[in-house]
Amino acid sequence: MGYRVGIVGATGAVGQELLRVLERRRFPVAELRLFASARSAGRRLGFAGEELVVEPLSAAALRGLELVLSSAGAEVARAVAPAAAAAGALVVDNSSAFRMEPAVPLVVPEINPEAARAHRGILANPNCTTIIALMAVAPLHREAALERMVVASYQAASGAGARALAELQAQLAAAVAGEPLPPPVVLPHPLAHNVIPQVDVFLEDGYTREEHKIARETRKILGLPELRVSATCVRVPVPRAHSVALHLEFREPLLPERARAILAGAPGVELVDEPQAGRYPMPRSASGCDLVQVGRIRADASHPRGLVLWAVGDQLLKGAALNAVQIAELVLALEPEPA
Amino acid sequence: MGYRVGIVGATGAVGQELLRVLERRRFPVAELRLFASARSAGRRLGFAGEELVVEPLSAAALRGLELVLSSAGAEVARAVAPAAAAAGALVVDNSSAFRMEPAVPLVVPEINPEAARAHRGILANPNCTTIIALMAVAPLHREAALERMVVASYQAASGAGARALAELQAQLAAAVAGEPLPPPVVLPHPLAHNVIPQVDVFLEDGYTREEHKIARETRKILGLPELRVSATCVRVPVPRAHSVALHLEFREPLLPERARAILAGAPGVELVDEPQAGRYPMPRSASGCDLVQVGRIRADASHPRGLVLWAVGDQLLKGAALNAVQIAELVLALEPEPA
Repeated sequence: MGYRVGIVGATGAVGQELLRVLERRRFPVAELRLFASARSAGRRLGFAGEELVVEPLSAAALRGLELVLSSAGAEVARAVAPAAAAAGALVVDNSSAFRMEPAVPLVVPEINPEAARAHRGILANPNCTTIIALMAVAPLHREAALERMVVASYQAASGAGARALAELQAQLAAAVAGEPLPPPVVLPHPLAHNVIPQVDVFLEDGYTREEHKIARETRKILGLPELRVSATCVRVPVPRAHSVALHLEFREPLLPERARAILAGAPGVELVDEPQAGRYPMPRSASGCDLVQVGRIRADASHPRGLVLWAVGDQLLKGAALNAVQIAELVLALEPEPA
Repeated sequence: MGYRVGIVGATGAVGQELLRVLERRRFPVAELRLFASARSAGRRLGFAGEELVVEPLSAAALRGLELVLSSAGAEVARAVAPAAAAAGALVVDNSSAFRMEPAVPLVVPEINPEAARAHRGILANPNCTTIIALMAVAPLHREAALERMVVASYQAASGAGARALAELQAQLAAAVAGEPLPPPVVLPHPLAHNVIPQVDVFLEDGYTREEHKIARETRKILGLPELRVSATCVRVPVPRAHSVALHLEFREPLLPERARAILAGAPGVELVDEPQAGRYPMPRSASGCDLVQVGRIRADASHPRGLVLWAVGDQLLKGAALNAVQIAELVLALEPEPA
């Protein structure tokens, strides 16, 4: 019993996590097929005790699948997802290709599960930083009506893919050995001993596409087309887990104590907020965790209805693979296991 | 010709930079004496081709000096600075001990040199993150009247002292070797492969003391007692140079082009703002530089009179040693060399 499942981009950082998440959540898989670019085809990846050979991706290759979890780039997604959906597969796509299409639901199951109902075969997984921020913000918005969100991010190397992580590790090894750093190939500058205030490309207005994604996807997920959002996205020399400093403004007053109580009961969230005891969210403690950690909750000293908080989540799990599998579970009406 | 100068805390991260800055700016030193805790006394440090022996600090030891540049902790500063000033020395103190005392000028020479005139022997050097942020903010405030400042910082390990930097380096070496990390002693958590949303201790309202310093010192330096400020201060695994993401709100409109022109002409500032060409401020490029780099200037999409920018400065130089020497030059009416 189970579904015929395909993973597109199976050898990438998110693809490999998809395999682990399916295993770990005992997703009912009747058959699993793995796809990647011609370069990676032929590699073998383990799943549930078996070795699977990665196949070269083509639109035709996806025929017959009931569920496609895609973590390839936007261009590849545009080339294969519509055909797979037309052939009857449910497609959960992790790229930015379809996120802003009005007919495609953009879903975080804990936040807007109702949006999934309207799908026509393709559902989009939001941007990783957006998911992590909104896991903290959405429960508070329901209480006090969000009016403005100012975000500064601290994004991990693996958010730019497995090769970016390898690049950081090679640079750190060289730095520790006192040798010249190998030149950056994946990231725009050396990340070791540095922070880079650029994630994705720059647009006309001076924001990056990543910063735009946070604004636009937040509006769509929360159903707030007029929400005011401003983000500064920064890459930091951390292997895994994205952090965000959130300065929020609400229509209604919201005391930190009330926010803490709300987040303590929010699904998918772990409240880590005992700063005096040195307990707050950090990439080291959030890496490998399904839950998004939220802490440092305080009244904003600069705004009468403002709240400041700090959230950290594993961008390969809740920011990508886990959320995608949760979307599939939601749409396939499976009972997800408790996180 | 020159002054009898003493450096308190000479063996620390800032103290050693003070020696280099005095040399580099050809500060007129007739005699230089170095002071540190009993533990570090006896060490030898080079200055202008000579070797100087570090003396143990005491209030009596500072007698006869005309200029004391102090980069010890607040407690030590409180114990020795008033006596040194009473004995006739000009004291420029880098600790937080005197910064908020109404009678003590808190000075960034490019921003509020006029404040220095009222000194009674002691002048305070502001917090490093505050200096770096204000080098970018103050020229814009003069143009458009700042009303609110939201800051997220990315602070280097050496901002917590030379021992914190050594701790990060030891952790990175262990991480690269695949060995367990040595436990943190100076910082509250391991910083390698991590970011820590805590700089200094937590206060009652949930902000840290560092975050409070930014708010209070900004108000004093800009002469805006009602200015609304909210900061989130975060330690990142970078050896040197602090970065800040600044979301600013002004009373008057301020276009990014105008802000760029103002900052291009601001003393002590280097405009690095060609994002399409990959040129923006970063710790790697700002380390060792006297100038504070400012870039990523854009209209705030979430506020009609908002401006977003990114500034990076060497917190041991403009954030500490350089600014302290500049204060001394200003008060001693020396002609500072162009930066």
